Amino acid sequence: MSENKNKLTQLSELGEFLLIEKLTKDKKCVNASTIKGIGDDAAVINQTADEKTVVTNDVLVEGIHFDLAYSPLKYVGYKAVVVNLSDIYAMNAKPEQIVVSFAVSSRFPYEALEELYKGIYEACEAYGVDLVGGDTTSSKLGMFLSITAIGKAPIEKITYRDSANINDLICVSGDLGAAYLGLQVLEREKKITKETNMPPNWDGKEYLLQRQLRPEARKDIIEILDELKIVPTSMIDISDGLSSEILHICKMSETGAKIYEERLPISEDVRNTANEMNLIPTTAAMNGGEDYELLFTIPVTENEKIKDIDEITVIGHITEKDQGVNVIAIDQTPVPIEAQGWNALS
Amino acid sequence: MSENKNKLTQLSELGEFLLIEKLTKDKKCVNASTIKGIGDDAAVINQTADEKTVVTNDVLVEGIHFDLAYSPLKYVGYKAVVVNLSDIYAMNAKPEQIVVSFAVSSRFPYEALEELYKGIYEACEAYGVDLVGGDTTSSKLGMFLSITAIGKAPIEKITYRDSANINDLICVSGDLGAAYLGLQVLEREKKITKETNMPPNWDGKEYLLQRQLRPEARKDIIEILDELKIVPTSMIDISDGLSSEILHICKMSETGAKIYEERLPISEDVRNTANEMNLIPTTAAMNGGEDYELLFTIPVTENEKIKDIDEITVIGHITEKDQGVNVIAIDQTPVPIEAQGWNALS
Repeated sequence: MSENKNKLTQLSELGEFLLIEKLTKDKKCVNASTIKGIGDDAAVINQTADEKTVVTNDVLVEGIHFDLAYSPLKYVGYKAVVVNLSDIYAMNAKPEQIVVSFAVSSRFPYEALEELYKGIYEACEAYGVDLVGGDTTSSKLGMFLSITAIGKAPIEKITYRDSANINDLICVSGDLGAAYLGLQVLEREKKITKETNMPPNWDGKEYLLQRQLRPEARKDIIEILDELKIVPTSMIDISDGLSSEILHICKMSETGAKIYEERLPISEDVRNTANEMNLIPTTAAMNGGEDYELLFTIPVTENEKIKDIDEITVIGHITEKDQGVNVIAIDQTPVPIEAQGWNALS
Repeated sequence: MSENKNKLTQLSELGEFLLIEKLTKDKKCVNASTIKGIGDDAAVINQTADEKTVVTNDVLVEGIHFDLAYSPLKYVGYKAVVVNLSDIYAMNAKPEQIVVSFAVSSRFPYEALEELYKGIYEACEAYGVDLVGGDTTSSKLGMFLSITAIGKAPIEKITYRDSANINDLICVSGDLGAAYLGLQVLEREKKITKETNMPPNWDGKEYLLQRQLRPEARKDIIEILDELKIVPTSMIDISDGLSSEILHICKMSETGAKIYEERLPISEDVRNTANEMNLIPTTAAMNGGEDYELLFTIPVTENEKIKDIDEITVIGHITEKDQGVNVIAIDQTPVPIEAQGWNALS
C-alpha cells in the first residue's frame, strides 16, 4: 500500500455490511452452478444428478501460516484460496465456489482488506471459481482466515486416499522442496534485515519465493488426467510434506510403498539454495511441505500414457503392507519414512 | 473439567492427526447424503437432482463471541453449530452436514477440546447433522472456530431476503431480547465476582442464560411451515437484532415495513430483568441480537393457517418503500428503525 497513512479508512467507519459491499462489489459469478452468491443467510448451489458435491475448509492464522513482515496481503489472499482448491483437486474434482470468512483486529485499515480481497479474486479468476459468501468479524489480535471450497465430480472419478493397490505406480506432479526453502530464505532475510537494516536480497530466489508466497494448485494435472482418461487409484495433495502424505495413503490403503530418492523431482534452484544453507535437498523434498503438488497412484498399465508428461514423475510404487514405507536412497539403502511433516500443533 | 491439572494432555503430545482421530472416533454419520466424512482432502456429499445445495460459514472468536470466563466450552461448541444451522433454516432448507475448523493456542489442553467437541456432537445429534471434516491448527493467542454448514432444499422452497411483497405479514418465531439480557446478566455477575469474590447468582435467570449460552435454532418452525404448506416470501434469522434484520429484508425487497411495539413477543423474564437493570424491554427485543429466531414474511392470505401457532407471532406488515421502516410505538407514534444491531467491527 502506497497510500498516506492519514488517508486510510478505519474499519469502524464502515461497519460489517458496508465493508463486505465494498470488498465484493462489481464481481460477477461465472459458474452456472452458482444460483445465489453473497447477500443472504447462505449461498445456493445447483448440482446435477450425476455429480457429487465435494467440500473442504482450511483456516490460515497470522503468525502461524503467514507473516505480514514478508507476505503481501494480496499473496496471503491468493494462497488462502489456492490451498483450499488444492484439496478439491486432490479429490479429482472441479472447484466452483468458495466461502471466505475472516476475523481481523482493528489495527487493519480497510485498504489492507482490499489488498487481501484482490488476491482472493485473482485466485478466483485464475481457477474459475465464484466467491459466494462468508462472515466478517473482529478479533482481539491478528488475522484469521477461513476458506471453504465447494466442488463437484461424477462419483466414478472421485479419488480417495484409501484405495491404492499393490504394484500401483506412485506419481507426483511438479517439483518438491521449493516452498520450504522459500520459507528458509524469507526467515533468513528477515533476520538479516532486523539485525543490519539492510534490505532483503532475493536475487536468484524468485522461484522459491513464488512457491512459498504465491503457490498454484494443480488444476492442469486434473485436466491432463481427464484427457488421458486416467482415474488415479488414490490421491492427496502435498501440504505437510511428501513423507507425511505417502504415510497417509499407505496407512489408509493398508499398503507399503517404495520411493526412490533418485527419482524425486527437485529443481536446480532447490539444490543450489539447499547447498548454500547447509540443508539436504532430499530432506526438503520429503519433509518440507507446502508444495501443493498432487501425489497419486495409478495402475502400472497406465504408465505408457503418462511417461512423456513433463509435469508428472513416477517416484516409486506401492508394496505389500509388511514391506513398510521406505525411501530407497541413492546407495540403494532402504530408509523407513516416518512422519516428519509440519506439525500444526507443536 | 474436574480433572487434576497434572493429568491434562498437552496438544503437542498428540499432534494434529491423532487429535482429530481422538475427537471424532466412534461417531457415525446419519444422513444418506453423506458419502464421505472425515479423513480425506474433502468431504463428499450426494444431492438429488431436485434439490439444491445451501452453504454458509460463521466464525466465532474467543473474547468477541464467547468469553471462557463464563461460557463452558461444551456450550461454545453447541452454540457454534446452532448459529450456523440457523442460517440454513433461514433459507427454508434442511442442514445435513457441518465442517468444523479451529485454531487454538497451546494453553488449551486436549480435555478442553474434548469438551468443545462434546457440545458440537450434542448439536449434531439434536439437529440430525453429520460432522464431515475440518482443519486443525494452532494460534498464537486464543481460540478461533469456523463452522461451515451444508443443507439442501427444493428450489421452489428456498427463501431469500429480497422477495417480501407489500401487505405481507411480518412474523417472528419465539420471543426476543432474552439472549441480550442473558449477556448483560453474565457481564454483571462477572464484574461482581471479580470485585467481591462472591460466586455469581443466577437465580431466576436460567432462561436468559440458556438463550445466551446455549441457544437453539428453529428447526421446528421450518417443519411447521412445511406441514402448513407455507413458503415464506422472505426469511432471515435474527442474529444481529430485529431492527437490523427487518432493514435487510426491506432494503433488499425494496419495501417499507410497520412493526407494532405492542405485538413484540417479549417474555416475562425479559421484562423483569430489563426493569431490574434499568433497560427498556423493547430496546432489548429490537436491538439485542443473538436470539436466533426466524423473521419471515407471508402473504396475508396465509394468516388463517398460522394464527393459532403459539410459536409464531405476527408483529406487523410490509408497506410501500416510501413509507419507510417504522416501529409503531404503544402510543401510536411511528419511530423510524435505524440499524443498531451488533456491529461486528466496532
